[in-house]
Amino acid sequence: MSTLNTHPAALSLLVTGSLGIDTVSTPSGQAADVLGGSAVYFAYSAAQYVPVRVVGVVGEDFPAALRDQLAGRGLDLAGLETRKGSKTFRWHGRYEGDMSQAETVEVSLNVLAERGPMVPAAFARSDVVFLANTRPTLQRELLAQVRSPALSVCDTMNLWIATERDSLLKTIGVVSGVMLNDGEARQLSGESNLVEAGEWLLALGPRFVVIKKGEHGALLVSPEGPVAVPAFPSREVRDPTGAGDSFAGGLLGYVASRGRVDLPTLRAGLIRGTVAASFTIEDFSLRRLEQLTRPEVDRRVQQFIEMLRFE
Amino acid sequence: MSTLNTHPAALSLLVTGSLGIDTVSTPSGQAADVLGGSAVYFAYSAAQYVPVRVVGVVGEDFPAALRDQLAGRGLDLAGLETRKGSKTFRWHGRYEGDMSQAETVEVSLNVLAERGPMVPAAFARSDVVFLANTRPTLQRELLAQVRSPALSVCDTMNLWIATERDSLLKTIGVVSGVMLNDGEARQLSGESNLVEAGEWLLALGPRFVVIKKGEHGALLVSPEGPVAVPAFPSREVRDPTGAGDSFAGGLLGYVASRGRVDLPTLRAGLIRGTVAASFTIEDFSLRRLEQLTRPEVDRRVQQFIEMLRFE
Repeated sequence: MSTLNTHPAALSLLVTGSLGIDTVSTPSGQAADVLGGSAVYFAYSAAQYVPVRVVGVVGEDFPAALRDQLAGRGLDLAGLETRKGSKTFRWHGRYEGDMSQAETVEVSLNVLAERGPMVPAAFARSDVVFLANTRPTLQRELLAQVRSPALSVCDTMNLWIATERDSLLKTIGVVSGVMLNDGEARQLSGESNLVEAGEWLLALGPRFVVIKKGEHGALLVSPEGPVAVPAFPSREVRDPTGAGDSFAGGLLGYVASRGRVDLPTLRAGLIRGTVAASFTIEDFSLRRLEQLTRPEVDRRVQQFIEMLRFE
Repeated sequence: MSTLNTHPAALSLLVTGSLGIDTVSTPSGQAADVLGGSAVYFAYSAAQYVPVRVVGVVGEDFPAALRDQLAGRGLDLAGLETRKGSKTFRWHGRYEGDMSQAETVEVSLNVLAERGPMVPAAFARSDVVFLANTRPTLQRELLAQVRSPALSVCDTMNLWIATERDSLLKTIGVVSGVMLNDGEARQLSGESNLVEAGEWLLALGPRFVVIKKGEHGALLVSPEGPVAVPAFPSREVRDPTGAGDSFAGGLLGYVASRGRVDLPTLRAGLIRGTVAASFTIEDFSLRRLEQLTRPEVDRRVQQFIEMLRFE
């Protein structure tokens, strides 16, 4: 993206995850057949900080309009495979009440249930890698195609904790960091206290764990002790879809832009991740992120930092 | 308390609320027939900052050991009535799983179901008043016995929201601030978004609202915009009883000690309240607060402020 004012030593950033077609209804309204998927939310958020390399697969039914929409964000789509004879991932979800949990009305894995995408040769040297939620074996296969990244981070979900626990533990053993939500952290560790859940995960090998708590913020657990941040207090919450992946994108996009993968930079990334998520949920699908400018992001980052400054 | 190093312009602080005998079991153990009650947790926390005036009522069965325990904290107990022929409030609660909610095994209101205590003449001029959770009409009667305090704050509970809503709205209309938990804020306002719930409450008259979110921290809503803080990330959570009242005590005790009731001071009080609650939950009943020293409090306050400092 020519408009990006990146740090001279900015790191390259790669995301692997889903690209799909979502239909979402919330108390604020409904959006049908819109762009969605973990890799997309991550990439749109991270793209505020650095160019983003996307690895994923869609079916040949992927609409030209959504493809144009993606292409307009300046993402590097060299790793986006359009698979002949396959259909794109579709998700239909609904949020009610406090919107803390999506109810899946219908899901069609389609191409996501087939073999995974490949990391193209041009992306084999990527410094920071985010493995969005998918089957843990596939996460390891994808990571193995990148030559010793400086930072690799995986997400996961309740399904794999229940059905592929051993494989998931293997994946956690080979990444630098884990990001998952509070329910998943508790389910996986068996610890109800989140600091203890994070420390349980640390003992498996990663350098840090970020536990996402939705409207309650996030918790970074590392050998330097826990760091808790609240969510940005928002009045406008129209559609929480993609908040977690936007959080990861803001965090790792910022880290990559700083050219450093140390804990102080990850810590500062918590603020950028939180702010990215706070924009995402203000409108359906990628609408808010598409209109978002870097000055708007920076203003809210400053506002959030000020809100957390106490004497 | 002679050891208190108070600000020259420190304000006097009065709490009205329950004093009782608790039996609590949690995954960490059990404590039977121990000191409890909202006014007690509040007073022990606030007493780290200023002397505290206690107004409440116990029965003639109130054990001498618990009375000695209370007296040992340097509280001003001139407003503690021991009512002949009445029995002390008793609560038996249990926490399970993530301990976010107490299950009441048994409750005997006893003296709390009778007429309320009186504010003694010596306390009629009190600058800061905390009306812990009780029947809203009683909260107003108690407040009316204090001559125009600089700051008055009430708590409440789901029972009064359901059964005495109009009376509760009246109480909220005459106090400077409201502190309540997230579920109560949602139930009362009908708003699922907590910033909107807080603004709904502000419209009833108070200058500020603090929504307590337990392990997820707290939210201050005022005309100057929302301020969210996380909870202090604790590994040791043995008994959450009294966390909310300890939070209120730390917050208002700090505010009184600063001699100012403006929003910046209330904002800084959020940190002190959070830290007070974080100590309370580390052990059963008042055990942790009884051993607590002001340097320990100040160290954790500094640690929390540092944790929230971002670039």
